[in-house]
Amino acid sequence: MSGNCFGKIFRVTTFGESHGQAVGGVIDGCPAGIRINQQQIEEQLRRRQATSQRQETNEIVWLSGLLNGTTTGTPIAFLIPNHDIRPQDYQQEKKLLKPSHAHYVYWQKYGIFDHQGSGRASGRETAARVVAGCIAMQYLEQQHIHIEAYTLQIGAAKVEGFPHLELSSAKENILHCPNMEQASQMLAILDDCRQHGDSVGCKVGCMATGMPVGIGEPVFDKLSADLSKAMLSINAAKAFELGLGSEFANSYGSQVNDLYKPDFTTEHNYSGGITAGISTGEPIYFTTTFKPIPTIMQDQPTVDLNGQAATLQATGRHDICLCPRVLPVVEAMTALCLIDKYLEFKAYSK
Amino acid sequence: MSGNCFGKIFRVTTFGESHGQAVGGVIDGCPAGIRINQQQIEEQLRRRQATSQRQETNEIVWLSGLLNGTTTGTPIAFLIPNHDIRPQDYQQEKKLLKPSHAHYVYWQKYGIFDHQGSGRASGRETAARVVAGCIAMQYLEQQHIHIEAYTLQIGAAKVEGFPHLELSSAKENILHCPNMEQASQMLAILDDCRQHGDSVGCKVGCMATGMPVGIGEPVFDKLSADLSKAMLSINAAKAFELGLGSEFANSYGSQVNDLYKPDFTTEHNYSGGITAGISTGEPIYFTTTFKPIPTIMQDQPTVDLNGQAATLQATGRHDICLCPRVLPVVEAMTALCLIDKYLEFKAYSK
Amino acid sequence: MSGNCFGKIFRVTTFGESHGQAVGGVIDGCPAGIRINQQQIEEQLRRRQATSQRQETNEIVWLSGLLNGTTTGTPIAFLIPNHDIRPQDYQQEKKLLKPSHAHYVYWQKYGIFDHQGSGRASGRETAARVVAGCIAMQYLEQQHIHIEAYTLQIGAAKVEGFPHLELSSAKENILHCPNMEQASQMLAILDDCRQHGDSVGCKVGCMATGMPVGIGEPVFDKLSADLSKAMLSINAAKAFELGLGSEFANSYGSQVNDLYKPDFTTEHNYSGGITAGISTGEPIYFTTTFKPIPTIMQDQPTVDLNGQAATLQATGRHDICLCPRVLPVVEAMTALCLIDKYLEFKAYSK
Amino acid sequence: MSGNCFGKIFRVTTFGESHGQAVGGVIDGCPAGIRINQQQIEEQLRRRQATSQRQETNEIVWLSGLLNGTTTGTPIAFLIPNHDIRPQDYQQEKKLLKPSHAHYVYWQKYGIFDHQGSGRASGRETAARVVAGCIAMQYLEQQHIHIEAYTLQIGAAKVEGFPHLELSSAKENILHCPNMEQASQMLAILDDCRQHGDSVGCKVGCMATGMPVGIGEPVFDKLSADLSKAMLSINAAKAFELGLGSEFANSYGSQVNDLYKPDFTTEHNYSGGITAGISTGEPIYFTTTFKPIPTIMQDQPTVDLNGQAATLQATGRHDICLCPRVLPVVEAMTALCLIDKYLEFKAYSK
Repeated sequence: MSGNCFGKIFRVTTFGESHGQAVGGVIDGCPAGIRINQQQIEEQLRRRQATSQRQETNEIVWLSGLLNGTTTGTPIAFLIPNHDIRPQDYQQEKKLLKPSHAHYVYWQKYGIFDHQGSGRASGRETAARVVAGCIAMQYLEQQHIHIEAYTLQIGAAKVEGFPHLELSSAKENILHCPNMEQASQMLAILDDCRQHGDSVGCKVGCMATGMPVGIGEPVFDKLSADLSKAMLSINAAKAFELGLGSEFANSYGSQVNDLYKPDFTTEHNYSGGITAGISTGEPIYFTTTFKPIPTIMQDQPTVDLNGQAATLQATGRHDICLCPRVLPVVEAMTALCLIDKYLEFKAYSK
Repeated sequence: MSGNCFGKIFRVTTFGESHGQAVGGVIDGCPAGIRINQQQIEEQLRRRQATSQRQETNEIVWLSGLLNGTTTGTPIAFLIPNHDIRPQDYQQEKKLLKPSHAHYVYWQKYGIFDHQGSGRASGRETAARVVAGCIAMQYLEQQHIHIEAYTLQIGAAKVEGFPHLELSSAKENILHCPNMEQASQMLAILDDCRQHGDSVGCKVGCMATGMPVGIGEPVFDKLSADLSKAMLSINAAKAFELGLGSEFANSYGSQVNDLYKPDFTTEHNYSGGITAGISTGEPIYFTTTFKPIPTIMQDQPTVDLNGQAATLQATGRHDICLCPRVLPVVEAMTALCLIDKYLEFKAYSK
Repeated sequence: MSGNCFGKIFRVTTFGESHGQAVGGVIDGCPAGIRINQQQIEEQLRRRQATSQRQETNEIVWLSGLLNGTTTGTPIAFLIPNHDIRPQDYQQEKKLLKPSHAHYVYWQKYGIFDHQGSGRASGRETAARVVAGCIAMQYLEQQHIHIEAYTLQIGAAKVEGFPHLELSSAKENILHCPNMEQASQMLAILDDCRQHGDSVGCKVGCMATGMPVGIGEPVFDKLSADLSKAMLSINAAKAFELGLGSEFANSYGSQVNDLYKPDFTTEHNYSGGITAGISTGEPIYFTTTFKPIPTIMQDQPTVDLNGQAATLQATGRHDICLCPRVLPVVEAMTALCLIDKYLEFKAYSK
Repeated sequence: MSGNCFGKIFRVTTFGESHGQAVGGVIDGCPAGIRINQQQIEEQLRRRQATSQRQETNEIVWLSGLLNGTTTGTPIAFLIPNHDIRPQDYQQEKKLLKPSHAHYVYWQKYGIFDHQGSGRASGRETAARVVAGCIAMQYLEQQHIHIEAYTLQIGAAKVEGFPHLELSSAKENILHCPNMEQASQMLAILDDCRQHGDSVGCKVGCMATGMPVGIGEPVFDKLSADLSKAMLSINAAKAFELGLGSEFANSYGSQVNDLYKPDFTTEHNYSGGITAGISTGEPIYFTTTFKPIPTIMQDQPTVDLNGQAATLQATGRHDICLCPRVLPVVEAMTALCLIDKYLEFKAYSK
């Protein structure tokens, strides 16, 4: 296995399995002098925490790279110990393939059928991303760049018009959805799923404001391309859309060209703040779609490792939907992508 | 500027501006012994060629890395000379910002307002991707992996049900669209645009068959994440959707979980051939959405470099839609992504 | 600060300061299925341990990547806690520059004058290299590749003719020196230094046997170039010599060309097992020279942070010579370099 | 084959075989706005040119990245066509292994016995390094960093005391040796070799002045480590020594510690301008040793591809010593290393 690193200059490596001793990460390439707001990190970890029964710990053990709460420029290593390990919950599933789950490909790739959770494919790995992402966010905020993610869709309940709506109302509901009416419907859908032992997909919107013009590299390392990679690197992510996104396919140039105003901003920012792979100086916004959580509380037909038909009865502790707990992960990956491009930009600045 | 390289093991660097002497590329890390099918490369370049008036050349000058038409393992460098350079076509636009175009961000980033085409942001750069991608495809085809892209949507004309339809019919129309009826409507839309001086967006589907199970790395370098980056690195790409894509947001786990059959394939392959970032052994399929070409043959309000209002009258030679010419580019970037992951997989194989 | 990673495929990131909570590392890209010999790692850590008074701990905490003592292919994270932290030992030195020491450049680079040991420049960091290197060595040994380092010179006491001498005698002395007579002289020099509060430089030889022909890349990533980088990345390393090394400057082609025998080995292997950057299949051997440890128990004239003349009186706990404790570090870095090239080689193999 | 790239931020890829159509390179990550001094590049290429009979061309074809002689920030691609290709010169050697030459390892690694020169292992490849290195040098010179290489040893003729001697005298002899007496002896040794059909090794010193304090990363990516890699990546390089180099093994801390003066410079700069992997602000100096050119004009016993004993009679066109033609290559690789670290440094600067 490789590919546990993200970034070129601000480079994060994560490690740890969901049912091992800890998850954690190392940041190589963090600028010195960032004052760490520990409370914000804990708050983001708390938001990331499963709404399910499981009691995860979010205690962070800092191993290196900080002095009196400020980054020193040396690698920042940190741990989040795993406390609530109950492997017995998973024993019944031991020999059956879980539909749409990492088990089969892991078994084929590594020759190991990991019945204890799902190894590196576990959502637990994202806790390390959140910690690293918070440090990136705190640097970016010093540069007046602000990142925020929102629940835009759960099942049929869908917010229209993002990001051109009153986003501050998102604070008033647990889903961080900028439309109270849709938020209510979403909560109803989640309740319905809970009763039927089902799960449901969702769409997350994210906006970054304050990004200066000129960040991103115009060919392969477009800011849009690396943001897309950042989003698709989150478990269960299946689609990325920048600006109008897939709506562009049904649009005419005369309709959706972004016309410049005298201050070089545009009327509608259909482009989502990135043109030709480079930030335009306008707000960056995009959406990421996540599939339903594959583990459901319904019987599912499947096969065992010999290909024999069987019935899977899920018994563990599971979520219904990646929203809202994926929001801080989306924010973290956005921050990790933006800080890396931002520092690369600086290498070429005067 | 950086980021003109793609890949970790099979590593392509491209260079050249649309109105300079040549575009080209270097492949570092190509396996030895691939027999190059020159005709296929020329055919892909011909498909990539603008349908507009401009006569581009597709002559390839091989500089290194081939001996008697077979790769030697050394870097493969190649050129595609630019012959039909007519900078005078662009002179009128000299001092006006083109809406949704690379000019503004290039000007801000590099301090140069390049009135000659659009430098590295030009579609011409993709010719080098196609050449490198063809070499990757020819290696993959030796491993029985086949890649093919299709036009799925132009404006309101849209093919449903991809990839579960008769794909071979795509050969019968110039758009490589697997639905003849929709293809006719698409052509009508293109005609309409041509008459009105407008442009239109499109959606491309791509399928890779024969990919073995186990390719891709499960955390940041998911196969899905790198495919997404590959697609979004193409000019004008604004969305990437894997399998059901953004439809997953409106789906329940009980509906879209991929149930295993005794041969470890699934009923519907909603996942698009990748689960947890790793290939499942089933066909990989995804779509990429491209915005309308920003240069249109209509007057557009804009501003000059001082922010003074002005009217832009386009006079150059331009396309109406990225389909079908972007299809070989999508195929090439898919091949470059898959070969890189495939070779990385081999480093860990027994 | 960046550059805390080593390797392209087998990629190690280290972290931790000498006087912080722990040092440690993460390996990304380790093959699955390596059975870890914990005893060998502990033995190598014990050898690396300072001969000075300081009681370092060598306890390893494995955080991830191992299951029942075998690598799973996921990132291997580990810690070595720092127990014996006595910052008060260093207080007197607080405001004076130590000659030939990292303090000045760290102060200038990071704006912090770290009076607590020397941060990332501490020899303690190499403990993490040793752990990661042992895992690499255990993989290489499964491929019948064996790495061993020897003390060849301390001050004026010097072993001639490496590696063409009876190396097994090295086991019989604490310096791991393959010449008992020279070993005695070296020990006398160390004693002498101890009495005078001085330190002394040294030269280490290293040999890797069993390396197959063809490993290494012929241009920038020559096996020799990356070995050289690996060696010079060790603290206090000042020279690297492959095969005859700097003696080549005073040699004629007719004398030192390696003449092939019918089995494709050569008479003398003057080249040190690498030609044109690629392993020849013969033993790889090279030397690395380390400067004297800069902290000595003698008064030294220096300046304070304002440039005012002062006298430095060292009071901490310090070594006299990097030999023999640097030997397992040299072995570790050699192993990290060889495994990375070996895995890269496999990516291109049939 | 991989590893044809050098650098992390200022990233050079080279390509081309000695007896193919051209050699060349692409620079990805070059800052915009460097005014290119074409004459200096031509002069460096001329210096790199073989002193042997062969008439190489040094004509540079710029393919991209320059506008009116100034870098635009886009990839700079360039070619140096090969004109004087006389493969017939090499035919007799076709089936015999050349001692200490790349042929054997290439044959084993790539399965091809390349009788036409030595492919990527040819010294011709270094022409591309020189071009790229000159661009880096011109950027560095704008920052008042100056790089210069000197012949210090050919056979038994050896200059002592580098760099503490009158370096400007090097301009007065063709070897660029800073000691006229030794230069005469060196020329006599070269003459002697020419008469006897022999070749001889050499040592090159290099000094970089004007480097600010703080450049380089303190752990694996030490400035010393990457300089060492840069040097050992040059064909035939066998040793790298920084500052006192291997003399450190026979030195005491009390002798060779660099004592600070009130202006933070040191008495002797024994360290060679780098401590703990980071530039000290004092002149950087180091040496690189090159083995004798393996092709000699004497009969040599060898074997054919079946291991049968044979006699090799060299008949091509060959040099006697890598000095002085390797000097601009050493300067180029030094520049490529320094610019990369310098730009990385900037990414973290305020």
